[in-house]
Amino acid sequence: MFSEQRSAEVVAASFAGTPDDRLRTVLTSLVEHLHSFVKDVELTEAEWATAIDFLTRTGQKSDANRQEFILLSDVLGVSMLVETINHRAGGGSTESTVLGPFHMVESPPRELGDPIALDEKGTPCLVSGQVTGADGEPLAGAVVDVWQANEDGFYDVQQPGIQPPGNLRGLFRTDADGRYWFRSVVPRYYPIPDDGPVGQLLRATGRHPYRPAHLHFIVTAPGHRSVTTHVFVADSPYLDSDAVFGVKESLIREVPEVDDPQRAAAAGLDNPFRALTFDIRLRR
Amino acid sequence: MFSEQRSAEVVAASFAGTPDDRLRTVLTSLVEHLHSFVKDVELTEAEWATAIDFLTRTGQKSDANRQEFILLSDVLGVSMLVETINHRAGGGSTESTVLGPFHMVESPPRELGDPIALDEKGTPCLVSGQVTGADGEPLAGAVVDVWQANEDGFYDVQQPGIQPPGNLRGLFRTDADGRYWFRSVVPRYYPIPDDGPVGQLLRATGRHPYRPAHLHFIVTAPGHRSVTTHVFVADSPYLDSDAVFGVKESLIREVPEVDDPQRAAAAGLDNPFRALTFDIRLRR
Repeated sequence: MFSEQRSAEVVAASFAGTPDDRLRTVLTSLVEHLHSFVKDVELTEAEWATAIDFLTRTGQKSDANRQEFILLSDVLGVSMLVETINHRAGGGSTESTVLGPFHMVESPPRELGDPIALDEKGTPCLVSGQVTGADGEPLAGAVVDVWQANEDGFYDVQQPGIQPPGNLRGLFRTDADGRYWFRSVVPRYYPIPDDGPVGQLLRATGRHPYRPAHLHFIVTAPGHRSVTTHVFVADSPYLDSDAVFGVKESLIREVPEVDDPQRAAAAGLDNPFRALTFDIRLRR
Repeated sequence: MFSEQRSAEVVAASFAGTPDDRLRTVLTSLVEHLHSFVKDVELTEAEWATAIDFLTRTGQKSDANRQEFILLSDVLGVSMLVETINHRAGGGSTESTVLGPFHMVESPPRELGDPIALDEKGTPCLVSGQVTGADGEPLAGAVVDVWQANEDGFYDVQQPGIQPPGNLRGLFRTDADGRYWFRSVVPRYYPIPDDGPVGQLLRATGRHPYRPAHLHFIVTAPGHRSVTTHVFVADSPYLDSDAVFGVKESLIREVPEVDDPQRAAAAGLDNPFRALTFDIRLRR
């Protein structure tokens, strides 16, 4: 029978008949950790009621265009932890980071060199790099899926009717040397949506809602493990306090100004221009 | 910077500026336990996505008449644990148990001896007892708030328009000897609402949704700690597997048949009749 001392044991026993072994394992561990938490802090009834209300509102804030529980997972570092556990890097392959909630539409296929900043805002920038395999061999025909927020800090799906559909998204294929390049704008830092329960949590804890400037990538190639990652801009504010803990040292790049009239002309940019170079190495 | 090893530490550090000390303590502990859980089971991305969806639907199932997150807390034993931690009994005082989600309306004040089963279903039963203080002294004028499900397994608030308002609820005051008594029906076991995400969880884990037969009490008296509890019917199914873990040995009572024509007549019941006796002792 239930008692303070045996609480987790009693509840875990109720899951003993779970047909799926993995579900039983996960729930048993969840109950142990959840009960330990309640006991460690001696949660009061008022705090419990606040938590119930917070979680309920977090569910109710979510809809087809907003996922407040993913945001909650993000600001508690859970998304990043799950991501890290499931994609342990190694052998010099590119590290991964969170997918985030804004890859909700397919990126439009584009030709190498195409512009993706259809709203023509921001500082023009040439983004390029090489996709290689574990031994540095170029991967031709790798698929490079990119997306980023615009100069105002919003993804296209957050501003339907304001941004052109597919703005700042693109699906590219690497050339025979494994290279990709396209025209975009220098990424900007931006706040995660903070008009819901998660925003209240951030304010109550003195945390800001900002993510440092970044560009999202998913890179896939046959016979290799795909990688979901970002490249971060080296001088961006909030690099050391990303609201969702996504920054990894190995993913930060300078975006220098390049003075090269010939390359500028080839890329269709005014000289001088900003250039972001991000090479990606995949595991077999 | 974030890493698998340092994840909880990094996230806890983000809460370092929380102005409210208690909130910082609670969140720090929550993050430690939550990250330990994710690491212990090595939660997959698919499992994480299932959890996000489950929690979102749990919020969205809730409304003014349904609180699915409380149900979730109940079936994970969290409600019972919080309740137990916050109301540690002692010195022979009556043990407490969960409030449950159905004390959402004020119980109607009634006179001692009044019937509360306004729908006239079920097996008639005389409920009575004595409220005493820590040394056994009778507490006159103590307030005894009771509520129970009807013969079909529903509380009045679950069936507006079907059950009379205030059915199977009553607010009584003890007499000069600390005694209370009223007419009701023998409580029945019933299922918690299982047409939502919590019901899915119970089915996936081979658990039933039933609570053993019980009658709810909140008893208050000036100068004493109030108690929120149930009395459970001794021969009820599910006494050893209450879906919300509310049963405590000290709260179980027989409901014998009594053959006493005089007492039956005084109570306004046919002889023989069923009798549930539940004395309550409060702490100072």
